[in-house]
Amino acid sequence: MHAYLKCACGTSVLHSIKHEQTRNRTNNLVPDSRQPRIRHTIMANTAGQVIRCKAAVAWEAGKPLVVEEVEVAPPQANEVRVKILFTSLCHTDVYFWEAKGQTPLFPRIFGHEAAGVVESVGEGVKELAPGDHVLPVFTGECKECRHCKSEESNMCDLLRINTDRGAMLCDGKPRFSKNGQPIYHFLGTSTFSEYTVIHEGCLAKINPAAPLDKVCVLSCGISTGLGATLNVAKPKKGSSVAIFGLGAVGLAAAEGARISGASRIIGVDLNASRFEDAKKFGVNEFVNPKDHNKPVQEVIAEMTNGGVDRSVECTGNINAMISAFECVHDGWGVAVLVGVPNKDDAFKTHPANLLNERTLKGTFFGNYKPRSDLPNVVEKYMNKELELEKFITHDVSFSDINKAFEIMLKGEGLRCLIRMDA
Amino acid sequence: MHAYLKCACGTSVLHSIKHEQTRNRTNNLVPDSRQPRIRHTIMANTAGQVIRCKAAVAWEAGKPLVVEEVEVAPPQANEVRVKILFTSLCHTDVYFWEAKGQTPLFPRIFGHEAAGVVESVGEGVKELAPGDHVLPVFTGECKECRHCKSEESNMCDLLRINTDRGAMLCDGKPRFSKNGQPIYHFLGTSTFSEYTVIHEGCLAKINPAAPLDKVCVLSCGISTGLGATLNVAKPKKGSSVAIFGLGAVGLAAAEGARISGASRIIGVDLNASRFEDAKKFGVNEFVNPKDHNKPVQEVIAEMTNGGVDRSVECTGNINAMISAFECVHDGWGVAVLVGVPNKDDAFKTHPANLLNERTLKGTFFGNYKPRSDLPNVVEKYMNKELELEKFITHDVSFSDINKAFEIMLKGEGLRCLIRMDA
Repeated sequence: MHAYLKCACGTSVLHSIKHEQTRNRTNNLVPDSRQPRIRHTIMANTAGQVIRCKAAVAWEAGKPLVVEEVEVAPPQANEVRVKILFTSLCHTDVYFWEAKGQTPLFPRIFGHEAAGVVESVGEGVKELAPGDHVLPVFTGECKECRHCKSEESNMCDLLRINTDRGAMLCDGKPRFSKNGQPIYHFLGTSTFSEYTVIHEGCLAKINPAAPLDKVCVLSCGISTGLGATLNVAKPKKGSSVAIFGLGAVGLAAAEGARISGASRIIGVDLNASRFEDAKKFGVNEFVNPKDHNKPVQEVIAEMTNGGVDRSVECTGNINAMISAFECVHDGWGVAVLVGVPNKDDAFKTHPANLLNERTLKGTFFGNYKPRSDLPNVVEKYMNKELELEKFITHDVSFSDINKAFEIMLKGEGLRCLIRMDA
Repeated sequence: MHAYLKCACGTSVLHSIKHEQTRNRTNNLVPDSRQPRIRHTIMANTAGQVIRCKAAVAWEAGKPLVVEEVEVAPPQANEVRVKILFTSLCHTDVYFWEAKGQTPLFPRIFGHEAAGVVESVGEGVKELAPGDHVLPVFTGECKECRHCKSEESNMCDLLRINTDRGAMLCDGKPRFSKNGQPIYHFLGTSTFSEYTVIHEGCLAKINPAAPLDKVCVLSCGISTGLGATLNVAKPKKGSSVAIFGLGAVGLAAAEGARISGASRIIGVDLNASRFEDAKKFGVNEFVNPKDHNKPVQEVIAEMTNGGVDRSVECTGNINAMISAFECVHDGWGVAVLVGVPNKDDAFKTHPANLLNERTLKGTFFGNYKPRSDLPNVVEKYMNKELELEKFITHDVSFSDINKAFEIMLKGEGLRCLIRMDA
């Protein structure tokens, strides 16, 4: 039986950060409302004990989350308990919260895009220790399966995304409860809680100097889009790239094209209001399929003397997927699918489009291996190669988390940062 | 007006071969019925004159070819007149000779897989001279268009395959005639003639030491299959490769897998009689879809713990194409389509198969650039990396060319060599 210990800020673990590694830009000691605030109160060690903390519980599909106190059990074998400092809302949270297409699993704690600090580790955890700064990831890297050992795949056999699982792998039980009632996990991360328990394989250890309120968005959508371009489409300098869908993932794909030195970055979206903001991400030409009375792939082929060099599809709409493929140039064009389609969709094209030396690929989490690769993506931000600030268009306190849902449902902005300590 | 000059063997040009470059294996002076025979009669120079020679003329769709004397006009700008020494029959010849699906174009001289020696060159020809040994190719390389300048493409804008064109590019006229009646070209090569006129961009200049009766098969099908594996699928050493269709192109793809060091080469074919011979090409496992009551992609996934690393589709059957894609492993599998489908076929798959990090590519002539790359493929044969003898299962004299058609229509063997001087 564990003693319950209220622990709302977890500064005991924050104190283990090596401040000498921090730089001016990211120095947590510099007063800055956008930096994680250090509270200089040493807390009792919570390792091995149940923590009571605030979490945003989804009790029913589609109903507002309730921010309330829950119990978080200590991490078991290969698990890590993490204090979440910042989280943000991704469409996948909203999709499963609405639970319109899936088996509902409630009560549940959603959230998978976040950044935090390790509070304690369970048995067998080898690469993480209290105080480490981490990004939780909805898919993992066990480092032992065929996928993890392959240079090409990031689809870990053990820890690959599982949207139906609501409990931890080692014992099939959730670590969350409210007065003894279990509360289910989501994507193995459940970051809408001040503390959460995550498998070690789903945590990327990052540079402790990185500002967690910025790099938290690398935990899911931004890395997905960025990696789709940098790791999979791989446009050459001076090339042309079409991006289908100018939401956060699509704009991250555009950011990847900008970083790669693509000269023409053509944004395709049905929502014309997105075009202006997309310029910040390197998009320099726009196509709204509604403005044309022919298939958008034909419009793009005409604009580009036969097709773009690369395309990245970030909507999940099956027709956009087909257009994204058919708009790449024969001989060398590569189309990369990122968006998740409906389960009954069929991708359909004439095989001659393939035989004419076009390549069609799909990617999952931008082909990044969470533990091996995400730390380097954080470094890209630290080196100012990659800009993240422009993705964070909204900002709410944890108690206002339902506002983040409202903003997303209205289709406004890109990422809404949720500050756990506010 | 040209003087007609009968020239049946073209030894004047053969004499320009540098015999000191030949090796024992390929020395044309060694008496060997499989080597091009040198006739030591010096002929009058035929450059600039019309040549009368034998050609196998297809006067009507599906009717036996007639081997008879035709006139071959001298090469015009950027054209080369080639004495064909060996040619072989490919399915594409038979398909257009049957003319069941296309606009018929007759009389026509078919043939596109061959080897020969340059007899004379037209104005502006820069890289070829009389005596050069060449492989004619049904698609070209102008070296100036965007495709030729791209490292990735071999789909030359100027000289890309055109099955409907029956004349030369520069003046839209055929160079063949019979008593003044024009005879159409096929694929810009028309190698079923002792002499033919070909655009310089459709001729690969090869090592004069290479035995033309072997390397002639590199002019089309064998390079197509080989390149599909070596240049596009690129299997790693120790990997698994599925080959759909065990005809000449499929077995060339298998040969590519063997050269790459693939450890499992799984042949898939509806014709069980092909399995035994396929072993010579490295195929070490066999699947006949008829032996199973589930889709062949499921059979292969079960055999290989989730799918093969690479697959190469060489049948052109749309269902085989889909199976070839769906049988590759998630995370890293690459499927390469080679076979040419029917014009109304649709490639159809669930996009999740792509999103799970499978790659689907198509290739044309194995991604080889004819002029830049074929000489190196010939060197692979010369270095004994690549075996060609096993592809040549039949052998007929030019006067018996219709037998080659009969053999192919019966589905027997792989390649039938046609000896022009026999």
